[in-house]
Amino acid sequence: MRLSEMNRDQLLAFKSEVEKEYNEFAARKLSLDMSRGKPCAQQLDLCNDMLAIPNIELMKTAAGMDTRNYGCLDGIPEAKALFAEILGVEDDEVFIGGNSSLSLMFGTVARNMSHGVLGGKPWCQGKVKFLCPSPGYDRHFAICEFFGIEMIPVKMGENGPDMDFIEQMVSTDSSVKGIWCVPMYSNPEGTTYSDETVKRFAALKPAAEDFRIFWDNAYCIHHLTDTPDTLLNIMDECKKNGNENMVYIYASTSKVSFPGSGIAALATSKENLAAIKKEVAVETIGYDKINQLRHVKYFENIEGVKAHMLKHRAILEPKFEAVDRALSQMNSELDICSWHKPNGGYFVSFHSMPGCAKRIWELCKNAGVVLTNAGATYPYGKDPLDSNIRIAPSFPPIEELETALELFCICVKLASAEKLLEQAK
Amino acid sequence: MRLSEMNRDQLLAFKSEVEKEYNEFAARKLSLDMSRGKPCAQQLDLCNDMLAIPNIELMKTAAGMDTRNYGCLDGIPEAKALFAEILGVEDDEVFIGGNSSLSLMFGTVARNMSHGVLGGKPWCQGKVKFLCPSPGYDRHFAICEFFGIEMIPVKMGENGPDMDFIEQMVSTDSSVKGIWCVPMYSNPEGTTYSDETVKRFAALKPAAEDFRIFWDNAYCIHHLTDTPDTLLNIMDECKKNGNENMVYIYASTSKVSFPGSGIAALATSKENLAAIKKEVAVETIGYDKINQLRHVKYFENIEGVKAHMLKHRAILEPKFEAVDRALSQMNSELDICSWHKPNGGYFVSFHSMPGCAKRIWELCKNAGVVLTNAGATYPYGKDPLDSNIRIAPSFPPIEELETALELFCICVKLASAEKLLEQAK
Repeated sequence: MRLSEMNRDQLLAFKSEVEKEYNEFAARKLSLDMSRGKPCAQQLDLCNDMLAIPNIELMKTAAGMDTRNYGCLDGIPEAKALFAEILGVEDDEVFIGGNSSLSLMFGTVARNMSHGVLGGKPWCQGKVKFLCPSPGYDRHFAICEFFGIEMIPVKMGENGPDMDFIEQMVSTDSSVKGIWCVPMYSNPEGTTYSDETVKRFAALKPAAEDFRIFWDNAYCIHHLTDTPDTLLNIMDECKKNGNENMVYIYASTSKVSFPGSGIAALATSKENLAAIKKEVAVETIGYDKINQLRHVKYFENIEGVKAHMLKHRAILEPKFEAVDRALSQMNSELDICSWHKPNGGYFVSFHSMPGCAKRIWELCKNAGVVLTNAGATYPYGKDPLDSNIRIAPSFPPIEELETALELFCICVKLASAEKLLEQAK
Repeated sequence: MRLSEMNRDQLLAFKSEVEKEYNEFAARKLSLDMSRGKPCAQQLDLCNDMLAIPNIELMKTAAGMDTRNYGCLDGIPEAKALFAEILGVEDDEVFIGGNSSLSLMFGTVARNMSHGVLGGKPWCQGKVKFLCPSPGYDRHFAICEFFGIEMIPVKMGENGPDMDFIEQMVSTDSSVKGIWCVPMYSNPEGTTYSDETVKRFAALKPAAEDFRIFWDNAYCIHHLTDTPDTLLNIMDECKKNGNENMVYIYASTSKVSFPGSGIAALATSKENLAAIKKEVAVETIGYDKINQLRHVKYFENIEGVKAHMLKHRAILEPKFEAVDRALSQMNSELDICSWHKPNGGYFVSFHSMPGCAKRIWELCKNAGVVLTNAGATYPYGKDPLDSNIRIAPSFPPIEELETALELFCICVKLASAEKLLEQAK
């Protein structure tokens, strides 16, 4: 029976039963974490051999550059070539950074704020707005908050964000300087932008010359099925429109090799890159080239990376299936929530009945399961429907994950029953 | 005979002879580099075994943290402990960053510009001045130029910078927000601040509450003699004055392990650190903890680091002696320049007759020896006397260094003779 069709007595009985289950769980004093998109230890083990490459192989690039010394601000040629393959751009459109694509994004926003884009007025000298497809990645939103950039939520659909709205905003409001996109297996929705969506992005006619698309392609090779999504190449499309300066593309090996010790990349037009290199040269003499070479020696090329990603998939796929199974089982009769089973990425985006997300989060927390804060997937932490919860199933071992999901489902049922009873008053 | 005592004919004869030597050198089409403080390959080799530590030892900290995964923004405990020993501070006064102390400095200035210090007004909202002991480090000055911070040169003496001037400026001008210091074996003078100087720094009474000392202790363990300089502990002294929020201390292993693949640290008060961590958390989830642990496993503790630095000294000391020998030999009768033989660090600071530095640089360049740009050691690249050249003898093999020095001395003689002839007109 659907929960919404229960009468008051039925709901009370249902709630009482679920409460009993909840209390039993709470008594177990669990301490489980489904809050962040962290690889599990087994995934990290996949790359241990990268740390055993003989030191003699790590010291010189193919061209004879000593990786151990200063210099080479934008990365060793073989690392650029690897990311060029991954991202579908030219080698000289790639900048290799440190261990964090988030840092590269932060740096780009920071420099645009303080120094402007390609000789334009520093963003900080005027009003700055960013479009934020939501639900989205909380750390993107945190960068905007840090710099006082006004965030405008954009609805996410099954083909990506609402392009009508984006086109209108970007073409008419010159204070709109950027948009955050996770175009493939989006965080948290798991949505891949359709070809049409990518084409419309590439064809934007911004009112602001210094408008930029922040294309965080974090999950571009993080497939979970035999029939992965495909994403149109934004750089190619931008070039067709003479818009190649409009996009910054980001990626990293954080969820390929090691989250703390990977390498990150920024791909953009040569003109953008030249300006970025000039500015970054003030900040650093260069990043860790030994680690860049370590990655190249280990993966060799895109085929090596793809083969490695299959090993990640083998560990992750059962966890995503466990999420889908648990939610399906719980929801089949009750019909109190929705979610998307993604073909890749790190998250399952869960939507409860409106007004229940915070309560579900709280119930889980009090019984020992930590979830990403309810609301975190929206600008300013404000989910207008209080409905979205990001489930990150990668980190816990599968038995713990199943336990956590069991509790999660109990909390969903309990919060939904509470809400319906409250509404029935 | 002193060059300044030669009459016109003698000078012309001297010049003609030196020109002949110069032309012979130029014909050799050399390509030598004494421009940057880069370790040589032999120095880098000292640490190769760090890259051969078995991977099993790199994966977990003593407390069981998985170094390979996300998290631990401020560094693993054992890396903090190592830098706390090196810098003479408490473990919880240390923040471990990426591979670059320059990045940590840039980040501190950038955040203070955009967000202010401990809740104060962002620096960018008013006039900002930095005191710049000069000659100094060009990359410090570049950070100021990048952010439009006005640089005020401060004279360097044998005990450090001119403290009378600094005390007056800092106590009376609230737009003075910072000062760049390389307190030990300063870049390029090789001067170590006296105890009195450090005490006066620690006792400063700034007009601006958000005035900060940027204490770049880059060469704190980089000795070149059996009787190294000693530097008073600025943190201890600041604490005695209730001034512990006033100093940011920076260091790295760039010239200990690998310049591109070392680890960098920032030490400051707990109050400063708490604010910094909150802000840096927007920029990154954490730095490379595997590399942090790699360093700790290799060096173990301060004694291990000190033992390692003796090996660097063994390679560097003969190079510094070669510089001193070549300059002494050239100058003994002519008396046309001065320099300081440092007890540590990476540079010899050379002072020509006024008005000759740019010409010496140009002559060297045209004959195939690259030096740091004349003027680079002063704010805005403007050496008021056009006299200072930073000699960086570490990188070239000793035979090449001696060749480069031979040419350098010829250029000094030639430029000096030209200058005296010009003045005699």
